[in-house]
Formats: sequence, C-alpha cells, structure tokens
Amino acid sequence: MYYVGIDLGGTNIKAGIVDGQGKILAEAFCKTQAQRPYQDIVRDMAGCVMQALKNAKMTTDDILSVGIGIPGYANQKTGTGAFCTNLGWYDVPLQAEIRKYFDLHIAIDNDATVAGYAESIAGVSKDAESSVFLTLGTGVGGGIVIHGRPWSGAHGIGSEVGHMTLSVDGVPCNCGNNGCMEKYTSATAIIRMARQACMTYPDSAMMLRAEGDLNRINAKTVIDAAKANDRAALEVFDEYCKYLAIAINNIIAFLDPEMIVLGGGVSHAGNFLLEKVKAKVPRYLLYKTLPYPEICLASLGNEAGMIGAAMIGKLAVDDSKKA
Amino acid sequence: MYYVGIDLGGTNIKAGIVDGQGKILAEAFCKTQAQRPYQDIVRDMAGCVMQALKNAKMTTDDILSVGIGIPGYANQKTGTGAFCTNLGWYDVPLQAEIRKYFDLHIAIDNDATVAGYAESIAGVSKDAESSVFLTLGTGVGGGIVIHGRPWSGAHGIGSEVGHMTLSVDGVPCNCGNNGCMEKYTSATAIIRMARQACMTYPDSAMMLRAEGDLNRINAKTVIDAAKANDRAALEVFDEYCKYLAIAINNIIAFLDPEMIVLGGGVSHAGNFLLEKVKAKVPRYLLYKTLPYPEICLASLGNEAGMIGAAMIGKLAVDDSKKA
Repeated sequence: MYYVGIDLGGTNIKAGIVDGQGKILAEAFCKTQAQRPYQDIVRDMAGCVMQALKNAKMTTDDILSVGIGIPGYANQKTGTGAFCTNLGWYDVPLQAEIRKYFDLHIAIDNDATVAGYAESIAGVSKDAESSVFLTLGTGVGGGIVIHGRPWSGAHGIGSEVGHMTLSVDGVPCNCGNNGCMEKYTSATAIIRMARQACMTYPDSAMMLRAEGDLNRINAKTVIDAAKANDRAALEVFDEYCKYLAIAINNIIAFLDPEMIVLGGGVSHAGNFLLEKVKAKVPRYLLYKTLPYPEICLASLGNEAGMIGAAMIGKLAVDDSKKA
Repeated sequence: MYYVGIDLGGTNIKAGIVDGQGKILAEAFCKTQAQRPYQDIVRDMAGCVMQALKNAKMTTDDILSVGIGIPGYANQKTGTGAFCTNLGWYDVPLQAEIRKYFDLHIAIDNDATVAGYAESIAGVSKDAESSVFLTLGTGVGGGIVIHGRPWSGAHGIGSEVGHMTLSVDGVPCNCGNNGCMEKYTSATAIIRMARQACMTYPDSAMMLRAEGDLNRINAKTVIDAAKANDRAALEVFDEYCKYLAIAINNIIAFLDPEMIVLGGGVSHAGNFLLEKVKAKVPRYLLYKTLPYPEICLASLGNEAGMIGAAMIGKLAVDDSKKA
C-alpha cells in the first residue's frame, strides 16, 4: 500500500505517491493561485492527487492516507484549523475540506516539520532517532524529530526556530520582536548584510554581479562572489556563518539532537557553507571535549515536502493500528 | 518495591527511598566535602542510602534501582563518565563506582533534568507529557520531558538552557560566549542589575536592606524590596521578568511543551514572579491568538532532586522489563 503526500506552497501544489520507505513513485503538480478561496485550492489539491495516482497507474484503493505539509501552523490535536499567512488562511478547516475528497487518514503539519521528518525517513538523517532540520530561506523554519517522531509542539506552535531571540535588542522582525534568529541566518539576512558591505566596498564583485544595483543582490550573488574570493562577499558570508554557528549552538545547548540538517535555499551553497559552519560551531560549545551533533546538508531537496507529508500520513495509519 | 534517589550537590548528599508514585518514605543526608577523592564521596553516598533504608526499616532487598542526580553532565548511552565542575570531576566513572556498593539498575543524569522529571511524575507538571523545568538559581539549568520521558539530548549535552545565547553581543559568560540566557535570568543577573540600579538610586530600599554595602545585595534583597514597592527594586525585577519572558518565549518557539515550570531560588518569589512573567510572555509570542504552554511554579522544592533521581532509576527498571 501507498501514501499520498501533498506539498502545499505559496506558488505550487505538489502531490506525490510515496511508498512505505519514503520513495516517490509518481507525482503531479499545479499552481496554487493563493488568492483563491481555500475550497478551490483544496479541490485542486485533490485533482493533483488523482493525476499523480493516474501517473502511477493506481486508484484511491491503493492508498491509505493523505498527508499535507502547509506553509504555516496546523494542530490536529486541539482541532484548530490551519493558519497560513502566505495563503491568507486564518483558521481554515483544511482537514474537513480534504476529507470531502478522500475518506482516508488525513494528517497535516508544518512544511519544515514534514521536510525534516522526510530527511529522517529517507534522507541524510535516516538513522537518527532525533534531528533538527533548518530551512535557510527567505525566513528560517525548523523541523524537529524526537524519538523518531516529528515534533511541532504540544500546541503545534513549536519548531519555529527562526523566531527564537538571538539578540534581545537586535534587528526588528516582522513578528514584533527584536533580534529573531532568522534576521541573522536567513537568505534575507545575507542580502541585508551584503547591501551594507557594498556601501563600504562599492567595487565588490557583488556589485559587479548585481550590475551596480543594490536591489539586485540576492543570496546567490553573495555566495558566488565569496566562492570567487571577493573580500567583501567573504566577510559577509563569514559573518553569516558565525551567526548560524551561534544559532546551531543554541539548538545543541537546548535539545542536543543526534543530527542538525541544513536545508533551504542557502544550503545550496553546499560544502562551502557546511565547512565554514562546522569550523565555527566548536568555539561556542559548552562542553568542548564531548561529542556533539553531526551537522550536515539536507539530501532530499524539493522532494522532502511530498515525502514528509506522505510519511506523517503513514504515521497516523501506523498509530491507529497500535491504538 | 522501592527506588533509591540520590541528590548529589556541591554541599550535601541526600538519599531518599521513594515509591513508584514518587513519594519519599525515608531519607538521610551527609556533607559532600567536594574536595575529596570521588571514591570517598561515593562511599558516603552508599552510606547515606544504607541510613535511609534503615530509617525506612528496609534492606537492599526492598529496592530495585539507584538513581543519581549530579550537578553536571553524565551520558550513560555513550558510556562517558561524569563531569561536574563544582566537584572537580572530570570523566569520573560514577556508574562503576556506585555499582561496587549496589548490584542494581543504576541511572545517572543532570540534577535539573531529574528535578524536572520529578515534577512531571509527582509535582506540578504531573499530567503533562512534555514540560521544560527551569532552575533559576546562581546559574540557570533546564530539565526537559518529552513523550513522558526525561530528555538531556542524544549526547547528554542538552537541556543546558542557561547557555543558550539570548544576546549575541551581550554580557560575557564564564562559558566563553556572550549573552547567555543565564546572564539575564539567574539570581546572579538580578544581583548585577540591582547593583547597577543602586548606583542610580542610592536611597533605594535595596541599599537600606543591604546596610549600604553593594556586596550584600542578593536576589532576596531585591525581591523583598520590590514587594515593598521600592521603585528601583521594582524596575530591576520588571527588567528581570522581561528577560525571563523572552527566554520562555524561546522555549515556546522551539519546543512548545505542555508546561513550563519555574524552580530554583528565584522561584521562591512565588506568585509575585509568576504573575509578572505570565503578564509579559504573550507580547513575545509568534502566534498571539493560539494556545501556548502553561507557566507555573515548581511544587516539590528541594525534594525534587531525590524523587527525580529515584524515578530515572525506575525508568531504567521499566525499560529493562520491556526490552
């Protein structure tokens, strides 16, 4: 039997048919068109699932569950609906709506949580009983796995690592607080630091790559210039890696998972990022002579969302058998 | 059958005979005399246990396990020894040493971890599957319970909440980092802030209570003066509560446990502390309309160490039956 995983993003809806080991057998996608009523979006989610089943030459009889990763908050335990700022969703009854199409186990969780769980089932943290996954993108999301299970908190509001305070009087954040971790460790943070650096170093390779327009600097501009040994870009990227190392040390001091997995856009910098961060972390550790979590790059890429969504559905199926 | 819990502190060794529900039936204590060789300390730990058994009119035949809470790090999984800065212990084979006296299940964990676990078995967080316990003392320790089990990390170096960075460029900490949470939320932090305030307000009630000597100001001086409505003391305590609320929000954003339990010396301020902190936390929450962890005061006081130590022993016994 198989499991459906839906990755609901602000731009695309992706549905995958996944086996019990987290392997995608077939998939389908369509545009989210986020401004539509949620009922229309859910109808297209169901359409994507049917298309993916068709691609796999299967029917709904072959699947046991539908899992959904959403860009926001969902708590099935408390029965609360889904909140997704990017989709304009406030307390949307997603579970009830998707059940109109599929009379199966339905599971919903945060997209970073399911992506982290995917890595722990079929990716780089496969053999770890505990892990923390970081999506280093426009913001910073987190996916926690403990005792082999995804953990988004007792009320579903946890694993928001990007909004842990790293600097009480630091850079203001949209959430209303100051100095949130994502203001220092997201792609957006790299861009902010790079723009500042370009004012000091107007001849930086970053400015050349951006054709002299500060607004055209993105994280890739900075990383590519740093890889090409541009001094200003290297300073920016080293500063970024310092903050990321401090943030990682916070995760170690608090949870000490077996592994810490770096995903999201910035992680495409690959070993250039990983080596710098790994070199900086030990300096911040409390117990400097003791073993600490392995830090590594995510391995499933964009498929993590579908795989993880399918796997939280499988978890619901497995749990119901035990109960 | 019963379980022995030993609370090993820098000053005292306490041993308790505890039942399966976390109730202490008898206890005994002696001085730690921390400067002695560890073998002597362990011998006295065993002596304390024998005395407690005698007080309970029991023998070693009535007990199934010996659990120990230590002021430092211990990782039974990796087989590493115990590290306790206050005792001058570096990689001490505590488990092997205590086994010379008791051929029973032996369990060792950090003192804040076992105290938090005690609260989750027999104290204020009794019905919570997940909780984070904070010891607000000279430093700040943490005890994490997840899925009903104590969690000190995959390598045993977690739950060190006091050394999570709250302010990257903040007050230097003994650990070598800057702006550790305990530099803002410990009793020591209250004293530092109070001394600064007394320079601005030399007529503060804090100075009166300290007989004009800045060095005689302690956390109780500040809290008592604040309760008596002294302006400077209230400012200090409000500032302290603001930092504690930010630190608590970090725990919520990351782990979102069912409950957050305040223990340690500062928690003796009771509802005066609790009400102020509870009033400040909502302002920092990411999801301001959703349920979040209950914040409450620890209820077991100094007995938490013995109870929790006994209960990690019981856990080892229960796990061995399952295996």
